[in-house]
Amino acid sequence: MRMRNKPWADDFMEENNHIVETSPFSHKGSWKNMFQNENPIHLEIGSGKGQFIANMAKQHLDINFIGMEKVKSVIVNAIEKVKETEVTNVRLVNENAEDLRELFTVNEIDKLYLNFSDPWPKARHEKRRLTYRTFLEQYQHILKPNGEIVLKTDNMQLFEYSVVSFSQYGMRLEEVTLDLNNIDDPLNVMTEYEEKFSSLGQPIYRCRVRFP
Amino acid sequence: MRMRNKPWADDFMEENNHIVETSPFSHKGSWKNMFQNENPIHLEIGSGKGQFIANMAKQHLDINFIGMEKVKSVIVNAIEKVKETEVTNVRLVNENAEDLRELFTVNEIDKLYLNFSDPWPKARHEKRRLTYRTFLEQYQHILKPNGEIVLKTDNMQLFEYSVVSFSQYGMRLEEVTLDLNNIDDPLNVMTEYEEKFSSLGQPIYRCRVRFP
Ligand SMILES: C[S@@+](CC[C@H](N)C(=O)[O-])C[C@H]1O[C@@H](n2cnc3c(N)ncnc32)[C@H](O)[C@@H]1O
Ligand SMILES: C[S@@+](CC[C@H](N)C(=O)[O-])C[C@H]1O[C@@H](n2cnc3c(N)ncnc32)[C@H](O)[C@@H]1O
Repeated sequence: MRMRNKPWADDFMEENNHIVETSPFSHKGSWKNMFQNENPIHLEIGSGKGQFIANMAKQHLDINFIGMEKVKSVIVNAIEKVKETEVTNVRLVNENAEDLRELFTVNEIDKLYLNFSDPWPKARHEKRRLTYRTFLEQYQHILKPNGEIVLKTDNMQLFEYSVVSFSQYGMRLEEVTLDLNNIDDPLNVMTEYEEKFSSLGQPIYRCRVRFP
Repeated sequence: MRMRNKPWADDFMEENNHIVETSPFSHKGSWKNMFQNENPIHLEIGSGKGQFIANMAKQHLDINFIGMEKVKSVIVNAIEKVKETEVTNVRLVNENAEDLRELFTVNEIDKLYLNFSDPWPKARHEKRRLTYRTFLEQYQHILKPNGEIVLKTDNMQLFEYSVVSFSQYGMRLEEVTLDLNNIDDPLNVMTEYEEKFSSLGQPIYRCRVRFP
């Protein structure tokens, strides 16, 4: 069910404000208080319909997950998914990841997930790619020292670009996997896009990188 | 024509000692003298039957090329190829790349090519891969500061491994290409293996990396 920008989406978000943060900027520097525990916080940018974050949260009850998704009609699906999964260690944020430093303070995040981010294939849109240098600066700011980014995508060009961009920024690659379905990773949690492209037989690329 | 270790291979090499160096260790530190010019020197390890190095030499007459190939019955093909191509800016070396520091002095090499290197897929053979850390130490020693390595392979696992190994060593990726046949690179010179695997429709991987 893809809901357009219907007014009831606002009502739905208000009703579920234990899952979706209605004033996320007020939590900058105090997300741990909000979760009421000292567990690490993992952030996903572009959570889509929430399958990944809901299932990750279920698999890792000792980690808090924050999912950012800019499209209201998409995030309502993620809210429903989190409700179904009955996990309490997820919060969703309906914001555009533009300046993450307004949402999170230095070192507040332990790990970052970029799943099937929009590829922005045209060269003139390079700056919009979530692995462009200016985004890496933001990630470095909010991530703990040695903080890890895990990227998955079906898009070859975005993957090639991202690996080089990470490296040029001085990050170290921990892992590069060019066909995720052909390796046995029992801990891998599939996203909606991952399921779709995998079932079409397309390779899924993954890398893990760390700031120095 | 694959020639086994026939005694005439030695005679053939002796006859062609203007192409294959019969006492390569004596040139350590003075390869430029040997070439009788000040042109940059590019090294290929595992030249096979020499198609790449002969055609590169033809395309770049202002660069000197050294090709190392450990198997005698293979290097004789490379000698023939260089003769056919009628280039004078190539020397072949029939040695195993074990300690390159005995063949080349600090900063003597400008660029290094690793083309379809043996993948050594078993974990216990990791140290034999030409992109294992101890080899990178050698490359860094003989390459100029900021020296570049260009790697091409059809082997996904070797490529994944190598990209991570380079990065962990502190090298920067300049380029990652996951399907070389699908990009338009008019300067790309195909090796024998590249032609074979490309014609079978297999993707060819390439990366360019630089020491800091
Ligand atoms: C291609 S979809 C992938 C969705 C999901 N991650 C998956 O793998 O199935 C990309 C999602 O990221 C969201 N998105 C893209 N850029 C974003 C940004 N700057 N901030 C927040 N969300 C973003 C889009 O709205 C879209 O829902
Ligand atoms: C798979 S073949 C590829 C040949 C050629 N580069 C191509 O792409 O067609 C690898 C070659 O590298 C040579 N080789 C492997 N390890 C070597 C080493 N340590 N030193 C010199 N040659 C080596 C092998 O003998 C073999 O001819």
